[in-house]
Amino acid sequence: MNILVDAMGGDNAPQAIVNGCVEAVKEAEGFDIVLIGDKNKIEEILGEKNLSNPRIKIHHASEVICADDSPTKAIKNKKDSSMVVGFNLLKEKKGDIFISCGNSGALMTGALLILGRIKGVDRPAFPAIVPTKTGKCMIIDAGLNTVCKPINYQQFGVMGSIFMKEMFNLENPKVGLLNVGSEEGKGNETIKQSYSLLEESNINFIGNVEGSDILKGKADVVVCDGFVGNVALKTIEGAGYFMIGLLKDVFFKNLKTKLAALILKNDMKIIKKLLDADEQGGALILGVNGLVLKSHGNSNEKTIKNVVLKAQIMAKTKIIDTISKEFSNTEVEDIAE
Amino acid sequence: MNILVDAMGGDNAPQAIVNGCVEAVKEAEGFDIVLIGDKNKIEEILGEKNLSNPRIKIHHASEVICADDSPTKAIKNKKDSSMVVGFNLLKEKKGDIFISCGNSGALMTGALLILGRIKGVDRPAFPAIVPTKTGKCMIIDAGLNTVCKPINYQQFGVMGSIFMKEMFNLENPKVGLLNVGSEEGKGNETIKQSYSLLEESNINFIGNVEGSDILKGKADVVVCDGFVGNVALKTIEGAGYFMIGLLKDVFFKNLKTKLAALILKNDMKIIKKLLDADEQGGALILGVNGLVLKSHGNSNEKTIKNVVLKAQIMAKTKIIDTISKEFSNTEVEDIAE
Repeated sequence: MNILVDAMGGDNAPQAIVNGCVEAVKEAEGFDIVLIGDKNKIEEILGEKNLSNPRIKIHHASEVICADDSPTKAIKNKKDSSMVVGFNLLKEKKGDIFISCGNSGALMTGALLILGRIKGVDRPAFPAIVPTKTGKCMIIDAGLNTVCKPINYQQFGVMGSIFMKEMFNLENPKVGLLNVGSEEGKGNETIKQSYSLLEESNINFIGNVEGSDILKGKADVVVCDGFVGNVALKTIEGAGYFMIGLLKDVFFKNLKTKLAALILKNDMKIIKKLLDADEQGGALILGVNGLVLKSHGNSNEKTIKNVVLKAQIMAKTKIIDTISKEFSNTEVEDIAE
Repeated sequence: MNILVDAMGGDNAPQAIVNGCVEAVKEAEGFDIVLIGDKNKIEEILGEKNLSNPRIKIHHASEVICADDSPTKAIKNKKDSSMVVGFNLLKEKKGDIFISCGNSGALMTGALLILGRIKGVDRPAFPAIVPTKTGKCMIIDAGLNTVCKPINYQQFGVMGSIFMKEMFNLENPKVGLLNVGSEEGKGNETIKQSYSLLEESNINFIGNVEGSDILKGKADVVVCDGFVGNVALKTIEGAGYFMIGLLKDVFFKNLKTKLAALILKNDMKIIKKLLDADEQGGALILGVNGLVLKSHGNSNEKTIKNVVLKAQIMAKTKIIDTISKEFSNTEVEDIAE
């Protein structure tokens, strides 16, 4: 298995990316890494601390897509950028999965323009996975589509269900529609129509779920548009930090509370880890012809290591094949790609 | 000051409502309460434990709007219901503020049909107040309007700003637009147009805020449509419970952690109280001709007491007058009321 990694994307590239990959190959077997980017710079980093490893290869790319580049222009004009080269290697099956921390817009655009949508998929999605009381929950979409049609909600439900089944071995993932109330008939017109379409789908649709149900684990897949999903995801992040902040204030109050904090230190670390994007790291673009894992722009060495380890599990699944099979008979409007 | 209270609305009516009002008058001076509903039942509760108090009066109403009544039909047909009578007393200035835990849909409908919108307000809103790192933040709208036009976002910003100034003495409330990114130009078309309108308004508009900014207290007023706001609000609630759940599991792990829990007991109570809807209780419908406070359907005695205490502070403000003045020159489309 070859894991393609954009060595030049993100705030801490290439140093953190290269180091993270070195850590990942130390920690697990069964895959090689192809670092894509400036050969000299990558070799320099690997040479510095004698980090070279036969499982880490370099594929030179002379250009870099920057954070402030216009997505479509960058993908079309920077043909030898680490990101575009990565997409092409993935398309040519020279790698099993592609990881990048680069410009999000360009990554989405590249996935659509270079890999293309899976036949039958109207709009790909960019889901997020959050921890819940009972395990994990996928919020789909979490940012790619800020306005959606009912067909999109339905397809998000189907793709999310397939992902959770393939990735976490859930037998019959529960799919819920994020709404302002639990009763049928809630929400606006788009949501009501989406409800009907989800009900007709061949998935385990459990009806409406509310914001408060997400972390309860009421559903394994929570379907929403990318605007609502992004707000929900970031609100969860913010609420986690808020609670940790409140606890910190309590812990530092006096000698007694400091003792309590000392006793709870390790457990608090576990809770913080659960809420830490660097630990969870990496979200898949669902609905395109290839596995593309986006890690956030300020990913550090630890994030990259975790994302690579996640990628190798993901690359063993049949996510793309199963989605392709599921949607092979679906007719969708043709959009310019 | 007269506080009008719907004694018959909600899951625990009339018992919890009556008891909560009795507690409220014991705790603070400067207001009387008019309990609206079945005179015999209310007198029976007051008589049971000798709870009668000259500051608590009864206004008889023979009907009750139930949770499963159709809102518009109920408001139009149940003329002698505690809710409709309450609205009419408020309209006739026989009370300064009206509190109800009854059917939410009917309460919103009644506010619109009986009190009417403030001149110039296109759509009233149902905001929520959440605790933040630095104080309090209003999410507006949090559920009344699941689809909004740019003018609504703008007016929510203005009304929210007035509320926070009047209610919490904030000098120049920071108003943010809830969006999927902090940079200008993010979001869908409606959001982009709303951004421009908010920028033109005579308020302290600080631009886009993200879900993670809400509890950080980056803005005092967070503007969004009622769908997004409802999801954000409930997601915060859910995240709070999730964190408390994680902590509980930690506390019960072993003898040492139980000791830590004992030390932190009082502080944890304060944190739980901060997240407790029964403590916060009561949300105002903004943009109608009168102060209407909705408390949730399963409000208990404690909730009612807190809502009444909040109501007497609210009734001293000039919220309605200030909104009326602000919007007096605004031309909005006339909708059937």
